[in-house]
Parts: sequence; structure tokens; C-alpha cells
Amino acid sequence: MFESDLKPVTLNQQALNDLAVGCAFLGSGGGGDPHYALLELSILIEKKGPDFHIDLIPASKLSDKDLVAPCGWLGAPTVSLEKLPSGTEALAGLEMLEEIMGREVNAVFPVEIGGSNGLAPLILAVKTGLPVVDCDGMGRAFPESQMVIFNVHGVSASPAVLTDAKGNSFVIGAVDNITEERVARAAAVSLGGICHLFEYVQSGKQVKDHAIHGTLSIAVEIGRSIREAKEKGADPFEALLDVMRSFPHYGAAGILFDGKIMDVKRETKQGFSVGHLLIEDFAGKNQMEIEFQNENLIARVGDKIYATVPDIISVMDRETAHTITTEQIKYGQRVKVVGVSAPSVLRTPEALEIMGPKAFGMSDRYRSIEALNGWKGSNDAQ
Amino acid sequence: MFESDLKPVTLNQQALNDLAVGCAFLGSGGGGDPHYALLELSILIEKKGPDFHIDLIPASKLSDKDLVAPCGWLGAPTVSLEKLPSGTEALAGLEMLEEIMGREVNAVFPVEIGGSNGLAPLILAVKTGLPVVDCDGMGRAFPESQMVIFNVHGVSASPAVLTDAKGNSFVIGAVDNITEERVARAAAVSLGGICHLFEYVQSGKQVKDHAIHGTLSIAVEIGRSIREAKEKGADPFEALLDVMRSFPHYGAAGILFDGKIMDVKRETKQGFSVGHLLIEDFAGKNQMEIEFQNENLIARVGDKIYATVPDIISVMDRETAHTITTEQIKYGQRVKVVGVSAPSVLRTPEALEIMGPKAFGMSDRYRSIEALNGWKGSNDAQ
Repeated sequence: MFESDLKPVTLNQQALNDLAVGCAFLGSGGGGDPHYALLELSILIEKKGPDFHIDLIPASKLSDKDLVAPCGWLGAPTVSLEKLPSGTEALAGLEMLEEIMGREVNAVFPVEIGGSNGLAPLILAVKTGLPVVDCDGMGRAFPESQMVIFNVHGVSASPAVLTDAKGNSFVIGAVDNITEERVARAAAVSLGGICHLFEYVQSGKQVKDHAIHGTLSIAVEIGRSIREAKEKGADPFEALLDVMRSFPHYGAAGILFDGKIMDVKRETKQGFSVGHLLIEDFAGKNQMEIEFQNENLIARVGDKIYATVPDIISVMDRETAHTITTEQIKYGQRVKVVGVSAPSVLRTPEALEIMGPKAFGMSDRYRSIEALNGWKGSNDAQ
Repeated sequence: MFESDLKPVTLNQQALNDLAVGCAFLGSGGGGDPHYALLELSILIEKKGPDFHIDLIPASKLSDKDLVAPCGWLGAPTVSLEKLPSGTEALAGLEMLEEIMGREVNAVFPVEIGGSNGLAPLILAVKTGLPVVDCDGMGRAFPESQMVIFNVHGVSASPAVLTDAKGNSFVIGAVDNITEERVARAAAVSLGGICHLFEYVQSGKQVKDHAIHGTLSIAVEIGRSIREAKEKGADPFEALLDVMRSFPHYGAAGILFDGKIMDVKRETKQGFSVGHLLIEDFAGKNQMEIEFQNENLIARVGDKIYATVPDIISVMDRETAHTITTEQIKYGQRVKVVGVSAPSVLRTPEALEIMGPKAFGMSDRYRSIEALNGWKGSNDAQ
């Protein structure tokens, strides 16, 4: 059901700007603000000259035996605001990974499409010439690395390679994927809170069978819809909802709340940015509370739940229609909360065990965002 | 100054029993109770038949280009009381280390002579046939892995290989030795609190130049002196002090306190067993307080300090003259506290930076145990 028929997609600077906007949206508040990654990518591309562009290849172009490396950053997004990368982390990790595997890596892709992590493999691709596969492992972002579709399908996270800005490197050989997350998180915390990670290294066949396909080009489309609506003076939220309803993996989408940030409680704890935020509507009557662990996990008004993981909850600036990631939320911001149905592969009983409300210690059973809000069903739910 | 002229030493079961007693003593309360390691070793040797024995080789027998791997366990000794090893940790780590180094390891030795860690490489040696070098890296035990003579001499702790009882493995490539400790500790905590570790892997030349030589056979002598004194009905403490005064690395030795354990505060925190204990003399007049972090760090009565790291502070059962490691200290035990001067290489300004009182956050400047107690100087202090 995931076999993508997408053609290779060419990304120029404008497409990359759009991609950053789309990744922030799909991140459900997490994955880190893509601002810095976009700057780094833009500088790299500018140096390559005006005709340079990045090609995304569909997974169908991979050979079954290709070695494909998902990558991204692990840690608390709050840390990434102050602790900038050195730019050497991913390359050092790639070299080490190739040494361990005894062969070259053939392609990379984002382990999660959310936030700056959606852009991470593109930076590596510009530096190395490696192709980027148009897919990811989550169809959004999740805070813990075992919350990935490859784990649902029994792919091993190990060997994983963790590298940091100072040149430290760690190879993790964990017997299970929860242990991989736990050790990687502990190591990242001990190194200052954020590290680059290769994990769930897999064959081309596994990428074709299990990845969530087309999500990089979907993110570009999201950014473009918002930008074009604003250029035309149209409502960017209407454009966003329309385009989200058109994508195969998503479908159900709507505005959950409209108001002003009244309170934020956020702490950086055990390698995560955790807390909750309160949004009050402009009538001053109702408040939506959103709990987050890097990503927004649950949105409720009083006792009524509007959305929970794995469905996407994105808090967006109501003027620019750009997502505000959880580490950037501040008192006084005027926002709209947009909810979108998660890809159906994240909603199976097996997937919900790993990335549903229970996996976050919530007692609430998962109910789909469309059921909670009386919306039309998601596109791939049937 | 460390060049050993010791002959190869042959260890039979009785010598191993003596070694365990000596290692517990030199551990300064740390390194873990050697009871379990001795059991494991005894079973392995029994299976090999009555004529089997372990040979210790002096470092002078190493070739300069040999690859030599110090090893031991990292974690809180309190954890090791309940979480037993699987027996596969060291072998799995050795295999991984050889793969990383691209060559075979030629010999092993204990990274610290203290407690069960003094016996750890012997277990590996029986399983693999590898020779054990008669030396260690501390001349005692220390809680943190950068507190080792090789770090004073600029040897890199990396690549280090951490393995656990479940089959997890972790290869650490740290840019400095403090980071190696920090990440290894964080990983060990995340894996349940105790792991096997190869670190400071070095050449035969480095072992000859930097290791603290002869400490395994010294530990055997310590155990034998105590045992033989008891067999003869003599005072084992007198025998212990006599033998400690005779060794080149040590020299100053005495009984610091005699009394009953009145209070123990101990918690397992951040991968260490930390706390303090109070011993009251039998007249009920004075109390000695000892602070510990895995190892005993400082002993004082009121304001008067009797000993601090790196000098050795060993709390011993006053009947058996066996050391009680910090995780085994209990209310009511009747004990003598024995102090011994540390090897002079641990007392240089460079070494004290790494393993002196300041390294443990104490404001007290280091003063030698012989100066604090008005004893004759240590043997290698001149």
C-alpha cells in the first residue's frame, strides 16, 4: 500500500523553503525548529551555484540490496536552540557507519519528516552527493526513536551511530529497540543534550516495504500551498486544510482551536522538552490545554479530548500560518491549532502499542481525530 | 621506577582465595565485593582439573607492540549485589574490541586492583587462555574511570567497549577521557547500573611505562599474610600492616580507628553508591565518619582528618580481618579502619588533580596519610 509512484522531485531554494514550512507542520510541534537547518542548507546550495538542486528519488528506484541509512538528531529541541551543530556530526557518523557495515551507504532519508529532522539528510546529501529517498519512518515526528514504523515491522535499530559536535562518537549494538533509544538518549544527555544519529539502517527492500512514502514531497506541497495562498491574499489555513485532505497518507484535517497562548510550562528533562501550554479563545471563555514531550501529544478543552498521538497536532501562528515548534511557544502568541489524521499504519493496534496514548503513559484509549471531531475519515483509513 | 622484576606467578585455588582478600583490601572499600567473582573463578578452575592454574606474567615479558586490554566492571557496587553477570559480557566485549582494533588482544589486566575488579581479567583469561599481566592502573580502586594512571600519562580511554548481561554493546569513541567516563556511566545506568568495560587499550610499551606493577601478586601476599596469621593464632592486622609496610608501592600503614558501625547512609545515585558511615569506639567517646563514593574517600573524627583519597582507607571486620566493601557495610559490624599510603605516582600534582580530594569536590588540600598520622613515610615517596 505504500508503493510510491512518485517521480524524482527536484528541490531548488524555494522548494527548500517550502519544505521547511511543511516539515515544521508535520512535526506536530517537534523535530526542532527547521530555521537553522534551512540556513545551513541554503548556504551550502548557494556555494554550489545557481543551477544546483537536490533530487529526491522515490523508494521504487532503490535496488533491493541497497544500504539505506535513516538519520536525524536526537535530543531536546530546547537544547538545539542554543547548542548549534559543528556541521561535522553527520559526515563523521556516516564514515563510521560505513566502516561498521563494511560497505558504502547508497542513500539516506529522514528518520522523521518533522521539523529540522526532515531537512537533516538533505544537508548530508549536498555534502556527499548521496541521493535522498522521498520517504520517512514516521509520517510526522515522535519524541522517542523506537516510535517509528520500522520498529513496528521488527527492523533492528542497531547498529546505531551517535556523533556530537565535539567529535565524540558511539556505536550502539542494542538487543532491542527500546534499549537502543534508552542508551542513545542517556549518551546524548551526557554529551550536552543533542546528537546526530543513524539508526534503523536497512536494505532498499525494507525501505520499499515499510517506509512512509512521498512525505518529503508532501512537505514541499504543504509549504507551497501556504505560501501561494498568502501570495494570492487567500486564507493559508484553508489552503493547508485542502491540501492535507488531498494526500494519500492523511485526509482528515481541521482547525481545533483559535486563540492566544496564556501559559507555557516547559522543562528540559531526561533528554526531552516536556510541558504543557494553555490557549484561551478570544472570547476568553474556553481554554485548550496541550501536553507535549518534544511533540504535542494531546489537546483537550476541559474534559473533552480533541486529538491525541499519533494524530498530528500543530500549533500555528495565525498570521503567517507557520508552525510554532514546542520549544518556541511563548506567552501571547496568537495561534490556530490544526489537527490532521495520522497515516493509517500508525493507527494499527501494533503501532498504537508503540506510539499511541498508552506509550506515553496516558490512560485514554486512542480515538481517531475524525471520530473525536465528527470529521470525514482519513484517506487511507479504509 | 615501575619496572617490575617479578617472576611469573602461578595462582592455584588457595592463591585465588588470598587474591580476593587482598583485592578487597586494596579496593579502599570499592571495586565490588569479590565474593561472586571468586565463586565464578573457582567453578571455572575446578572444571579444568586439579592441575590447572593461572599464570601472571610481569609486564617486562610483554612485547612493546603487544595489544593489551585493561578491563573491569563499571557501575554501582550496590547494583552488583543483585544484578549478576551473565558470564558472556567480557567475551563479547573482547570480540568486539578485536574487531575494532583489527587485531588480536595479546594480554589483559585489571584496570583497578580493587575488589572484584581485581579478579575480572582472570575469569576472562581462564575462558580464553589469554595471559594476565601482573599490574593494574590504580594500585587501588577509584569510582570514576578517568581516575587511572594511564589518564595521568595521556593514554586515551577510547575506543572503549561496554557490554551488558543481555547482550547489549556500546563502543565509545570519546575525544577526552572525562567524556568517556561520563558517557560510559550514563550508558551503564541506562542499562541497569553495571556493565563490563574495556578501556585504555594500550601497547605493551605503555603497560611497561605507566602501569602500577606487581599489584596482583601484592594482593595475593596480602591475603596470604592475613590467612597465615589467623592459622597461627597471630594478629592478622599486625601481619597485614607488616606486609603493607614491606611493599615498594605502599609502605606507611596503620590502624586509624577501632569500633562499631553506628550509622550508614547509602544511596545508588547516577551510577555510583554514595553515602557515609559512622563508627563509634567501644568507649562510646569518639566517632569516625567516612564518606564514600563506591570507595572510601575521607576519614575524620570531628574536625581532624585521618586520611583522604588517594590514600587507601579500608574498613575491615575486626574478627576475620577481611575488608567490608562499602555496599556491604551494615549497622552493628565491629570493624577496624586500616589506612595505607597510596603509590607515589598517585600523589603527584598531576595525579592529585585527577584523583585527589579536589577531584571529589572536597575543599581540603591533600595531605599524606603519614603526615596526618605522624607515621613513617611511604616506601616510594622519596
